Amino acid sequence: MSETELPLQDDDTEADVAQLDEDDRLKPEFVRAVLDAVYAGDAEGARALVEPLHPADIADLFELTPHEDRADLAKAITDLLDADVFAEMNDYVREDLIDALEPHEIADIAAELDTDDAVAIIEDMDVEDQREVLRALDPDDRAAIEEALSYPEESAGRLMQRELIAVPEHWSVGDTLDYLRLHEELTTDFWEIYVVDPGHKPVGTCKLSWILRTPRNIAISDVMQREQTLIPVDMDQEEVALRFQKYALISAAVVDLSGRLVGMITVDDVVHIIQQEAGEDILRLSGAGEGDINEPILLTVRTRITWLVVNLGTAILAASVVGLFQGEIGRFALLAVLMPIVSGMGGNAGTQTLAVVVRALATNQLTESNTIRMIVREFRIAAANGAMLGVLIGCGTWLIFGNPALALVIALAMIINNLVAGLAGVLVPVTLDRLDVDPAVSSAVFVTTMTDVMGFFSFLGLATLWGLGS
Amino acid sequence: MSETELPLQDDDTEADVAQLDEDDRLKPEFVRAVLDAVYAGDAEGARALVEPLHPADIADLFELTPHEDRADLAKAITDLLDADVFAEMNDYVREDLIDALEPHEIADIAAELDTDDAVAIIEDMDVEDQREVLRALDPDDRAAIEEALSYPEESAGRLMQRELIAVPEHWSVGDTLDYLRLHEELTTDFWEIYVVDPGHKPVGTCKLSWILRTPRNIAISDVMQREQTLIPVDMDQEEVALRFQKYALISAAVVDLSGRLVGMITVDDVVHIIQQEAGEDILRLSGAGEGDINEPILLTVRTRITWLVVNLGTAILAASVVGLFQGEIGRFALLAVLMPIVSGMGGNAGTQTLAVVVRALATNQLTESNTIRMIVREFRIAAANGAMLGVLIGCGTWLIFGNPALALVIALAMIINNLVAGLAGVLVPVTLDRLDVDPAVSSAVFVTTMTDVMGFFSFLGLATLWGLGS
Repeated sequence: MSETELPLQDDDTEADVAQLDEDDRLKPEFVRAVLDAVYAGDAEGARALVEPLHPADIADLFELTPHEDRADLAKAITDLLDADVFAEMNDYVREDLIDALEPHEIADIAAELDTDDAVAIIEDMDVEDQREVLRALDPDDRAAIEEALSYPEESAGRLMQRELIAVPEHWSVGDTLDYLRLHEELTTDFWEIYVVDPGHKPVGTCKLSWILRTPRNIAISDVMQREQTLIPVDMDQEEVALRFQKYALISAAVVDLSGRLVGMITVDDVVHIIQQEAGEDILRLSGAGEGDINEPILLTVRTRITWLVVNLGTAILAASVVGLFQGEIGRFALLAVLMPIVSGMGGNAGTQTLAVVVRALATNQLTESNTIRMIVREFRIAAANGAMLGVLIGCGTWLIFGNPALALVIALAMIINNLVAGLAGVLVPVTLDRLDVDPAVSSAVFVTTMTDVMGFFSFLGLATLWGLGS
Repeated sequence: MSETELPLQDDDTEADVAQLDEDDRLKPEFVRAVLDAVYAGDAEGARALVEPLHPADIADLFELTPHEDRADLAKAITDLLDADVFAEMNDYVREDLIDALEPHEIADIAAELDTDDAVAIIEDMDVEDQREVLRALDPDDRAAIEEALSYPEESAGRLMQRELIAVPEHWSVGDTLDYLRLHEELTTDFWEIYVVDPGHKPVGTCKLSWILRTPRNIAISDVMQREQTLIPVDMDQEEVALRFQKYALISAAVVDLSGRLVGMITVDDVVHIIQQEAGEDILRLSGAGEGDINEPILLTVRTRITWLVVNLGTAILAASVVGLFQGEIGRFALLAVLMPIVSGMGGNAGTQTLAVVVRALATNQLTESNTIRMIVREFRIAAANGAMLGVLIGCGTWLIFGNPALALVIALAMIINNLVAGLAGVLVPVTLDRLDVDPAVSSAVFVTTMTDVMGFFSFLGLATLWGLGS
């Protein structure tokens, strides 16, 4: 370690200290030191630096390394690149690395992983490469992964691991303990065990803490909880995440269409999805697609330009409304100066409402039961804010330009556009949601088009009615 | 149950079926049936409907009930209102209910809860009421809650529960099992146990599955994992959530400043925070504050109007740029028609970049190590998108208005403003982050001000240079 910084948290292990900053991120000096060793061909030195890192930090190291240097880094520290590191890595960065590895090397890594992590690595590969990796796996692993791949993307079937502990209902706590102690091959990665009937359908769930606190002779069916949240294998991962959150689950049994236990999802896999799904809304609302900073740049350009071109269309629509009033503007150019204030403020108010509604829909807080209440609420907020902004801009306009008619027109237009913004901000996402369209993706275009068009139209239209540009 | 709908998932327990829709939300008909019973004074009927619900769904029921009816609902189903329901409830809705309850009733509820949930209920009360509730608690609970309240809001100290299992290093697995079985008063809500030294400092963590799979005579210190993530008691909850996510933790030990074990945080508490923090960005970026739909309306109005007034200031600034060119606009009103296209498209492109950068900063993906790379990346994207949009709008303008000079001016302005948007979209949030200002809160104002001002200035300025309005 080249740094001699003071340790920031004396409870961290010594190895962590000089690599991570106070926010638990890799220090730029550390990343540079590793890369310098790689560039200098000093694989030994790079390995020595990276070795003490947690797998999650090794994954971060790859993300912080420029695209073109990742293969070199991987070659220098191959023996540290284990399954855990791959499981923690960003999808695009992982693809980069996988391209640089031979299929048999990938098969070695995949064989070490739980099904869910192995699937995450393999699902993004070319069909050709996939087949080659699957061939290199042993038959049990292959069958498990092939089955997982048969479920739709982003479904519970992809997310689940098949390694779990299931015991029959007639067992005692002692039977269960003996079974766990005697079978070396069982997974150690479980927090609850499932109790199943002879048809392998789950009948109850048992927290490990309950087993630990119960005498050996008690029947497992007297310890287990019968009410359990079962996840159908085809459930969408966002829905899975909402269930985990709502019912504070640590793990949940996954069942196939006939109700048989086929896998288990644990909360650590779901935490990642919750984070991702909640973050996705922000990116979708702004038209930034997935918004992954490791995405190939061409893909990013394509996603964003699509959204921009759609917005260009709506901007032209709004501009054509202004075009209707060219005569008035030519005679009274001040209208052109003030009109962006009305449209822009409507856009801001609409975006506020939209953000709130999109979040409330995504978290199941806004349902049919309270939609009317929400609309009324947003209307009242819009009326209050519109009135305040109208008075403010009206007084300002009067003071600066000494034109009471213009002041009244801009005040009224501001109120009207705020109401439009408030209503559109609720009605557009709620309607899209009812039509099963993701409100985060498409609401913003509709709402800002409405606030632009109505902002220009109300201001310039009222001004024309008042004879301001004549 | 008055509904006779078909069960949607046959693996759900029967009671769940008619109350929940396919997305696991309470059905509006069910909510109405409960409220009708409440309005009719039929407490018995309301209780019968609500009784089969999961605590999380009872909490949802209160959220879906109009503000003014919540106290009546609470009175009708008082005996179903247990600690679990309160733990699941939205903060504002909980405050509503707490206002309706007597301090001794709240104390009864708080006494049943783990420290973290009890603190969540008590922390928002008036100091007066707090004191009354604390007095009604038994001394142990009171001391625990008072200590938790002494930590800063949104810190690990507020989030942790004090109920945990800690064992000395010299114990065997058998000693641990016996201890857990013989001590009825211990918590059952744990997934890992902590091994502590004589000074009560944690030296290792042991998953319950390891204990279950190990013979009784093995020393606990041979089973435990020595590397562990310790959470300092004053760590911010967002930071705690990032650690849980990064290291896929199920629970983590919380230590005080001297390194002693004082509590434990479990992942189910953190899941909620991850969701909330990720969702907060979207709301802050749009100036909607917390964006909680259960927030009192006056608070919402105040939060939003503050943001709108700040934006009004920047809109006036942008308008004053247009004001510089009133003469040109008066002579050539088409400039006023086209100018919002340039400013608006810059705003859209800036928002895209901003959303990506704010997310990347919040998830620790964008650090000092890759900031330069990110700036270059966004500059390239902005150049590509600006060029495409410029060509598109330029050709369109030429075709429609037959004015090649105007077409060239708008194309150039579009390119310039896209570059401004791309650079501002990265530089503003990164700079704010370095200054320890939350980039989600304040970036959007700066970025859209820049794109508005530069959009108007580049378009009208170039038009003036070209002599278009003379």
